[in-house]
Amino acid sequence: MTNTIGKIFRITSFGSSHGKALGAIVDGCPANLELSEEDIQIELNKRRPGTSALTTARKEQDQVEILSGVFEGKTDGTPITGVVYNTNQKSKDYSSLKNTPRPGHGDYCWIERYGNYDYNGGGRGSGRITIGHVIGGAIAKKLLSAKGIKIISHVVQIGDIRAKEANIESLEENITKNNVRCGDLEVAKLMEDLILSKKEEGNSVGGVVETIALGVPAGLGEPVFGKIDGDLAKVLMNINAVKGVEIGLGFGVATKTAKEINDEFYYERDDVKTKTNNSGGILGGMTNGMPIVSRIAIKPTPSISQIQETIDLNKKENTTIEIKGRHDPCICPRVTAVAESATAIVLADHMIRSGFIHPTNLEKRV
Amino acid sequence: MTNTIGKIFRITSFGSSHGKALGAIVDGCPANLELSEEDIQIELNKRRPGTSALTTARKEQDQVEILSGVFEGKTDGTPITGVVYNTNQKSKDYSSLKNTPRPGHGDYCWIERYGNYDYNGGGRGSGRITIGHVIGGAIAKKLLSAKGIKIISHVVQIGDIRAKEANIESLEENITKNNVRCGDLEVAKLMEDLILSKKEEGNSVGGVVETIALGVPAGLGEPVFGKIDGDLAKVLMNINAVKGVEIGLGFGVATKTAKEINDEFYYERDDVKTKTNNSGGILGGMTNGMPIVSRIAIKPTPSISQIQETIDLNKKENTTIEIKGRHDPCICPRVTAVAESATAIVLADHMIRSGFIHPTNLEKRV
Amino acid sequence: MTNTIGKIFRITSFGSSHGKALGAIVDGCPANLELSEEDIQIELNKRRPGTSALTTARKEQDQVEILSGVFEGKTDGTPITGVVYNTNQKSKDYSSLKNTPRPGHGDYCWIERYGNYDYNGGGRGSGRITIGHVIGGAIAKKLLSAKGIKIISHVVQIGDIRAKEANIESLEENITKNNVRCGDLEVAKLMEDLILSKKEEGNSVGGVVETIALGVPAGLGEPVFGKIDGDLAKVLMNINAVKGVEIGLGFGVATKTAKEINDEFYYERDDVKTKTNNSGGILGGMTNGMPIVSRIAIKPTPSISQIQETIDLNKKENTTIEIKGRHDPCICPRVTAVAESATAIVLADHMIRSGFIHPTNLEKRV
Amino acid sequence: MTNTIGKIFRITSFGSSHGKALGAIVDGCPANLELSEEDIQIELNKRRPGTSALTTARKEQDQVEILSGVFEGKTDGTPITGVVYNTNQKSKDYSSLKNTPRPGHGDYCWIERYGNYDYNGGGRGSGRITIGHVIGGAIAKKLLSAKGIKIISHVVQIGDIRAKEANIESLEENITKNNVRCGDLEVAKLMEDLILSKKEEGNSVGGVVETIALGVPAGLGEPVFGKIDGDLAKVLMNINAVKGVEIGLGFGVATKTAKEINDEFYYERDDVKTKTNNSGGILGGMTNGMPIVSRIAIKPTPSISQIQETIDLNKKENTTIEIKGRHDPCICPRVTAVAESATAIVLADHMIRSGFIHPTNLEKRV
Repeated sequence: MTNTIGKIFRITSFGSSHGKALGAIVDGCPANLELSEEDIQIELNKRRPGTSALTTARKEQDQVEILSGVFEGKTDGTPITGVVYNTNQKSKDYSSLKNTPRPGHGDYCWIERYGNYDYNGGGRGSGRITIGHVIGGAIAKKLLSAKGIKIISHVVQIGDIRAKEANIESLEENITKNNVRCGDLEVAKLMEDLILSKKEEGNSVGGVVETIALGVPAGLGEPVFGKIDGDLAKVLMNINAVKGVEIGLGFGVATKTAKEINDEFYYERDDVKTKTNNSGGILGGMTNGMPIVSRIAIKPTPSISQIQETIDLNKKENTTIEIKGRHDPCICPRVTAVAESATAIVLADHMIRSGFIHPTNLEKRV
Repeated sequence: MTNTIGKIFRITSFGSSHGKALGAIVDGCPANLELSEEDIQIELNKRRPGTSALTTARKEQDQVEILSGVFEGKTDGTPITGVVYNTNQKSKDYSSLKNTPRPGHGDYCWIERYGNYDYNGGGRGSGRITIGHVIGGAIAKKLLSAKGIKIISHVVQIGDIRAKEANIESLEENITKNNVRCGDLEVAKLMEDLILSKKEEGNSVGGVVETIALGVPAGLGEPVFGKIDGDLAKVLMNINAVKGVEIGLGFGVATKTAKEINDEFYYERDDVKTKTNNSGGILGGMTNGMPIVSRIAIKPTPSISQIQETIDLNKKENTTIEIKGRHDPCICPRVTAVAESATAIVLADHMIRSGFIHPTNLEKRV
Repeated sequence: MTNTIGKIFRITSFGSSHGKALGAIVDGCPANLELSEEDIQIELNKRRPGTSALTTARKEQDQVEILSGVFEGKTDGTPITGVVYNTNQKSKDYSSLKNTPRPGHGDYCWIERYGNYDYNGGGRGSGRITIGHVIGGAIAKKLLSAKGIKIISHVVQIGDIRAKEANIESLEENITKNNVRCGDLEVAKLMEDLILSKKEEGNSVGGVVETIALGVPAGLGEPVFGKIDGDLAKVLMNINAVKGVEIGLGFGVATKTAKEINDEFYYERDDVKTKTNNSGGILGGMTNGMPIVSRIAIKPTPSISQIQETIDLNKKENTTIEIKGRHDPCICPRVTAVAESATAIVLADHMIRSGFIHPTNLEKRV
Repeated sequence: MTNTIGKIFRITSFGSSHGKALGAIVDGCPANLELSEEDIQIELNKRRPGTSALTTARKEQDQVEILSGVFEGKTDGTPITGVVYNTNQKSKDYSSLKNTPRPGHGDYCWIERYGNYDYNGGGRGSGRITIGHVIGGAIAKKLLSAKGIKIISHVVQIGDIRAKEANIESLEENITKNNVRCGDLEVAKLMEDLILSKKEEGNSVGGVVETIALGVPAGLGEPVFGKIDGDLAKVLMNINAVKGVEIGLGFGVATKTAKEINDEFYYERDDVKTKTNNSGGILGGMTNGMPIVSRIAIKPTPSISQIQETIDLNKKENTTIEIKGRHDPCICPRVTAVAESATAIVLADHMIRSGFIHPTNLEKRV
């Protein structure tokens, strides 16, 4: 189950940074969803590196190919296999890393757990494996859009620089206007500068990505161990480099009283709404019809060129390491694509599980 | 699957606030673990209300009875059923709540999702259902203690009041010395005062609970969708009133550089350690042998006596609600027992899944 | 997962022959199904022993109590807990069985697997644990009946005595007219005589139970590893004493040609039918709208009073065993209730998974 | 979950008869198992068609390529992806099949369930998809062989012709000496003749395949819903064309008494054995250390060239169909490879689940 997520709409991910290929199988997608490789490619392009000075200089085309599950332009209810063949993975010599785990990376844990570890480019511990997430997420997003649901992730903080609260109307457009994928265009410039300054130092910086899901109906989520916020927390925390997950006000609730943050209900014509959305659209583990808002804390990319202390597992002694190569000085802009995908996967699964999308045939009403 | 958590060591929870009983079935616990009702009762007593002025005045004995799974004082590998019969659930009239969802509660979502909703005392949306978590957690803790693992949850923040960093040596004892279950005895007094002042206002306040797991071996966690932090995030976020989950530095990573927070490795004799523990004991989704540290943000109990605006679902019009009854002005102290249990459940499951505990018979070496 | 079956509609079973209680939790049943203890009791009574000379003389009342999941006479979407407290389990001395496994029983395997084994009355290996199946099955049958699906199990063979092919019109009534639960009333008498003659010998005899499900729509079943016949085979084979499972012609297909047994399609007005039903209503792992027909082979109850050879696990030497007590000379009549339940559980799960029953609220159309 | 089987050692299958590729992801295989494409190819060659006059004349090379999960010649604990690209799938015109379901095939059910159905060569309903089973099974067999477990499937019946009971010593060699894969060389010749005579008639014939697993330790299997026989029944019944599954005596138990078939225990030196093996190595849902014996009933391939009656779903009227192409007159010989694989997958999963194989690293003792 290690590499599978979801209950009905399920993603099974495979592949490693420097192996032959990476990808995902999407099982449980209903038939009759129009789907092309282009639908997936658009999302993969958002996470692809080498598109600006803010990301690693590695060029990876990350072209997806669909091997199964689509018939005459539509899904047919069978497993959809999307694969990206690795092409730019140079046979650079990583062997110096074999026994010297990089601080901040999982190398040591992989070795302890499995014994045999593909250390080339981080193997399956590499951020590159989120290609599988995005293949799954692209299909989930297409499915959700058929029900009027839209998901947008954007950078709201880099280091100490924070964006103003997002204007949902202009958000989607604004994030395409800057390389940080921040909705606040003034602040985006400052964020870029900060990232570039850390890059020059051979260092990296963290940040926060917010995800907003619009159009989600009330009643998704299965208390008590299948709550929608629990499932979101899991999939978001599972993204490489994430160290925290918040829903709605998140850690802000600790300093508040109920009187201050309880979202009061009211009717807007026949629709039930809440005056505020401090809950982030989730109450009792279920959606309440308001936008679902989550935030994730992303640590600075641990691969930095400065010398760090570590150990030699072979010689059983302390040593130092200097990591070479081209790394992201800040991974947050690229994580937005992954956060959208992760959120979409959970929502697609719950939309089917809750009876809002027919489990076998999208054309059947529910 | 709604009410089941875990893959090998699995908890299935049942019951509601005002029904006949609450409890849990623990499946997948290896045989030959010594287990008595007293082992579970000790943990249940930690979450039981009515033990101080900080909690609801409701008296609930919450006596557990084991219906199956223990033979001659030891588990026998069959499902362990723990049940608590409800005794103090007065037939108070909750019918005014039937169509007027309480702000901050899941009532509205339950009605939308299921149609038929037990609104008495919040039904299965009540915090009372965490009795099932604690039954499962008590067994998990017993199992983990056989492998030298200890789990401690404590309150680190109430409102704006924050505890000093915990001294792990005195922590377990200190939290028993105050009603807030805070390890910082000076600050604990201030926290108590704040909670009592909110209680007098008919209001409530939030906080943060930290959980530390000691003695966990390196190599737990299954990348990429069964990471240990992902599983912890899910089970912790699933706890009633939780709105955020952090591992290690958590949201603190956003403002840091890799140089500042990468935990450097070193040998302490033959043991691999890190100089700092900003990662909270988890790298690449796997444990690295250092203490596992998580924090959860807990919102103020939404049941407050002040008048709030809401809707009447029957008449389809706006209205107000005044919630009566005895409620917790701050749920954080009682949540510590639940956070310990939730953490223990995840760790017990992964200890078996990773080969550190034999899956069928505790006496067999692994 | 050991004791849980199903994906959406899920049964978790617990308890043992001589422990405090047995029962099951049903999770994933949609809300708004009318349900009473009487609905379950009717089914439990079918499997209850002591109702005729054909079964064990043990008297067990097997009264079910619902602890959770029903609100105001209807399910509310939360876990339904049904429990039967053991009352007639005498503290007879079973200790002679502790180290001498009974031939044909799982005693030896339980000891090998778990180390600590409740040998009293067979513990959790006892046929008595099918009370959990029937609790789950009773709820499943009630749910299916709301969609016009009916399930009937009947005895078609005892020893060498075989019933004529069932007349579906009179079947349900006929099986209530004899203690064997056979639809062929002439043959039923011969079956009774055979069973009683084996009983007198201190021996037991096997048989075959057939189950027919009527009214199942076409399109249930998830190829390739969630086929409806695969799921039926699993749940039926999991019933105590079952050694074989057939669908439709079953092993009869081995001697046939395709020309002889391919079921040809035709229209009966607007309905698609097949002229024959050799497939037992399942093609390619999915239902085709015809009656679903399965048969299971049930071995003679291994507990017999004649002396048998076995081993003493303590002394590590060969020995003999003489099993005392009141045992069923043929378990087939009582197994019919369990086969109906097992079939109902699988169909209820797939009806939800396939979009024919709304997953959260029975009143919502699908 | 549709296309995934197993709990820890898990196979996710994908692909269709005439799509780009077929294959499987194996997740949960411990690291440090030596594995090459050749290991898988050997097993695939056993099910490959075109190797004798008994199978379809279609030539399919079915060359497997490993895309992930193997590092430096050994598994590394990450998902193993095996893929077979379709090369011989001619763009023959299948469109006449689009609305006229073939009797005995799942076409009608696929259309009803999913709406969009790849009818070319049977799409995912084709027997060709068992390539995924065999990829998974080959890895499972390699893993099991490291623990001394061997699995052999052989044909024991074709039409009315039955093989003598297998001599386990010569079985493995004998089945390679004839095209039917029967261990009884005399009878094999008769079987061949029968199959060829049916081929000439444009008809096909069914049979029975037996599978024997040697070297399986006592104690595998998880009562009550994870019994080893239940899991075997599921995976075997899920194989295309299977209509019945037996363990040990199977349906033979119906005519027997307990005295006749109870397997009596004895010590052979320190080993526990049973004098007979009527139980097929499984008691109470767990292995007892004796050989595991199962049999499956396989229906005659429904694709025959004789004219059959069916319906036109478009015109909603009765019609006839004449199926062209090259089909297997008897699929049993090729099914042996699939039955071995299916059995191996279940045993590998349970060996890990029961603590006989370390879950993460094969080199670690358990």
